[in-house]
Amino acid sequence: MNAGFALMTDFYEFTMAAGYFENRFNPKATFELYCHTLPHQRSYLLVCGLRDIIQYITRLKFSTAEVKYLKSLPVFQNVSKGFFEYLRAFKFSGDVWAMPEGEVCFANEPILQIEAPIIEAQILETYLLSMINIQTLVASKAARIVRAAQYDGTARPVIDFGSRRAHGPEAGVLAARGAYVGGCLGTSNVLAGHRYNIPVLGTMAHSWVQAFDNEETAFRNYQNIFPRHTVLLVDTYNTLQAVRRAAAFKKAFSGVRLDSGDLLALSVRVRRILDRAGRSDVKIIASGNLDEYKIQTLVKNKAPIDIFGVGTEMVVSGDAPSLDLTYKLVQLETKQGTVSYTAKLSCGKHTIPGRKQVYRMFDAKQQLKKDMITLAGESAPVHARPLLAPVIRRGRPLKALPSLADARTRAEDSLRPIPSCFLRLERPSVYPVEYSPEIMAVSRAVQQRGRRRAGR
Amino acid sequence: MNAGFALMTDFYEFTMAAGYFENRFNPKATFELYCHTLPHQRSYLLVCGLRDIIQYITRLKFSTAEVKYLKSLPVFQNVSKGFFEYLRAFKFSGDVWAMPEGEVCFANEPILQIEAPIIEAQILETYLLSMINIQTLVASKAARIVRAAQYDGTARPVIDFGSRRAHGPEAGVLAARGAYVGGCLGTSNVLAGHRYNIPVLGTMAHSWVQAFDNEETAFRNYQNIFPRHTVLLVDTYNTLQAVRRAAAFKKAFSGVRLDSGDLLALSVRVRRILDRAGRSDVKIIASGNLDEYKIQTLVKNKAPIDIFGVGTEMVVSGDAPSLDLTYKLVQLETKQGTVSYTAKLSCGKHTIPGRKQVYRMFDAKQQLKKDMITLAGESAPVHARPLLAPVIRRGRPLKALPSLADARTRAEDSLRPIPSCFLRLERPSVYPVEYSPEIMAVSRAVQQRGRRRAGR
Repeated sequence: MNAGFALMTDFYEFTMAAGYFENRFNPKATFELYCHTLPHQRSYLLVCGLRDIIQYITRLKFSTAEVKYLKSLPVFQNVSKGFFEYLRAFKFSGDVWAMPEGEVCFANEPILQIEAPIIEAQILETYLLSMINIQTLVASKAARIVRAAQYDGTARPVIDFGSRRAHGPEAGVLAARGAYVGGCLGTSNVLAGHRYNIPVLGTMAHSWVQAFDNEETAFRNYQNIFPRHTVLLVDTYNTLQAVRRAAAFKKAFSGVRLDSGDLLALSVRVRRILDRAGRSDVKIIASGNLDEYKIQTLVKNKAPIDIFGVGTEMVVSGDAPSLDLTYKLVQLETKQGTVSYTAKLSCGKHTIPGRKQVYRMFDAKQQLKKDMITLAGESAPVHARPLLAPVIRRGRPLKALPSLADARTRAEDSLRPIPSCFLRLERPSVYPVEYSPEIMAVSRAVQQRGRRRAGR
Repeated sequence: MNAGFALMTDFYEFTMAAGYFENRFNPKATFELYCHTLPHQRSYLLVCGLRDIIQYITRLKFSTAEVKYLKSLPVFQNVSKGFFEYLRAFKFSGDVWAMPEGEVCFANEPILQIEAPIIEAQILETYLLSMINIQTLVASKAARIVRAAQYDGTARPVIDFGSRRAHGPEAGVLAARGAYVGGCLGTSNVLAGHRYNIPVLGTMAHSWVQAFDNEETAFRNYQNIFPRHTVLLVDTYNTLQAVRRAAAFKKAFSGVRLDSGDLLALSVRVRRILDRAGRSDVKIIASGNLDEYKIQTLVKNKAPIDIFGVGTEMVVSGDAPSLDLTYKLVQLETKQGTVSYTAKLSCGKHTIPGRKQVYRMFDAKQQLKKDMITLAGESAPVHARPLLAPVIRRGRPLKALPSLADARTRAEDSLRPIPSCFLRLERPSVYPVEYSPEIMAVSRAVQQRGRRRAGR
């Protein structure tokens, strides 16, 4: 977490916090974060963003200046000093459960659960949603792109080139992290490399080629400095001429990058030129507004492309630029110490009450069969793996988190046993997620009580 | 600029920087940042993001740890110590011209020009693109939404509620800034309020209503604490029942928020209930997956909605989640001190060389007529207003920037004289942007020379 993010939350979190405080109402509450409806053409998501969230939750505090700012807002004029003192002393004291990074999740499955005094849990909402949103969004999109690049069974690396089109400098770093978990080989984002230890990769820009008197000089000036790491960008003037010239160089180079034109036709001709010149070792890297659909078509048509550089469409998840993530109150502890289940019953948006567990079930071939959402306390279905595990207890992180490399491996491992009908790019089947009879009974009871609460 | 963003750039910026350095090649270069193709249904953009960019450019430096990280990368193993010393001493020394925040721009018009030794100008690329991308994207989307809300000529405020769906916590703050410049009344993002002095606004969440024993208690508990700032969220259980109950309260409240269901039908019925109870002063706020199209339809159909809260679709610019922004080398100073124009000639992506000025021309009624892109040195067309002005000279900001409120006013003022055919939400006309004969002559010359540079 970057310093100074304590105020990155919706204003109503603070007015509600003040409202709870002034009403002396601060029971233990459980909120769950989940994706209500999956985006178009998606049948699963890859969970990502937990590491940053654990840092945020365990380090969150409000500075004197931040509290002073809040106090200065007219809305708070009737709020007592006690509330602002409460904020100055704020420290998260609750418990958090989460799905691990790299795990596959489906619609309505809790990714994160916060159990804490309601004021604490409420204030976290906006940061948690936005952080899970960007990282899970990009990890899930990257998984589609990486899969498309391997459509014929050959492992073809995908590299994140998208930072310039991300939603600001920080979003580019978070997207690079998501893309790496989703299976990318690395990123062009140097800060992501430094901060998260992701491999950084890159070629050259058109400006390099334009800057020198001619293309040949530009190519040679780069080769001289980076003898083992030269990928020549060949489309500044005329792609085939550039490749012919490079193929005649005595000095070795590692690749050529195609960034415009008909990538299928060009890659075939470029490969032929390189091979005839005895340069079969030189790789072809393709970039330029690529997405999973274009890549799958290129691979299906046997374009001899070795590496894909993907930018915009991956880092903004172009066809689905946000997730329908929501953070809902599912239960409260009453004054008597018992649990009171709660749900929103709004038209078309009603929620399922109760703290939950998600179980994943496999068939005899170890392929995914179905998921079951139960109440947290229910006994586990047979041969089922629970997906939510504690990560923070009484405000403290439980243990060191798995590394980012582990999250990337987990993503591969969680995707492998998914039958291909759920993974295809277009019109994937909907994966079966069931609710246990117990949780459905609770849900019906809450709906009935809700009608009473709505009164009349 | 947040500290620690020096490495937020594409890796190839540093390899090219090292390449230029090792080749002792560092001429003064001019790069221009512009939007090549406007997104679907857009005929203009609102420029936004300059303030953060000026801070970034004038403060950019590399720490020992950052340089050490770069040095550790295998690619740099043949690069001399001198380059890393250069980075440690880095300070931007060039000039920057820009369009002011809130100005309207069209396709291919430079928003930003950087003139500096090529190494300095190159390193800035990725940060500049991503920062202009998010803020201009959201400002432009917000302008559409705000216009839709005023479709019938009545000023109906729009509030940014989108932080939770932004691409990470920082993107939400930047989006809030863009939305404010684009005409929103305020934002729910408290950090944006604190950092940029944008009005912060909000209501209550469903969790507040669920947390108490019944809806009536929840409403009253809020009213008691915020007697003059209570907007009741009425759709947790049953919207009309909730409004009937609230209408009977003795205590005043400022509004009700509808967040689900058929907003047209509900708003008509809710208005009727409130009016019959003598609560004509109570405002109706609508939210829930709104965009400019839905809002225009609601207003066309005379939905009695007073304020719109817009989230996801605005902060991610849902129908067009990125801009086709590019940063291109347009000229270099040769050893002889003359200017060498340069362009990329790639198939379908060729660029126009030369440092430019953009002139805006008005007709006799002070309506926008056309824009003209010229070389920077050309004499101005008659009755034309130049849009690019210096903002940094020799590495120093030229003067205090206009305030954010001024940028918002400028946006209003720049949109007002645009004929409505360019402003309509769907199939807007394409605004005429011409190139001067001089710049076209230079462009043809560069294309001819380019064929020679490409060799044979």
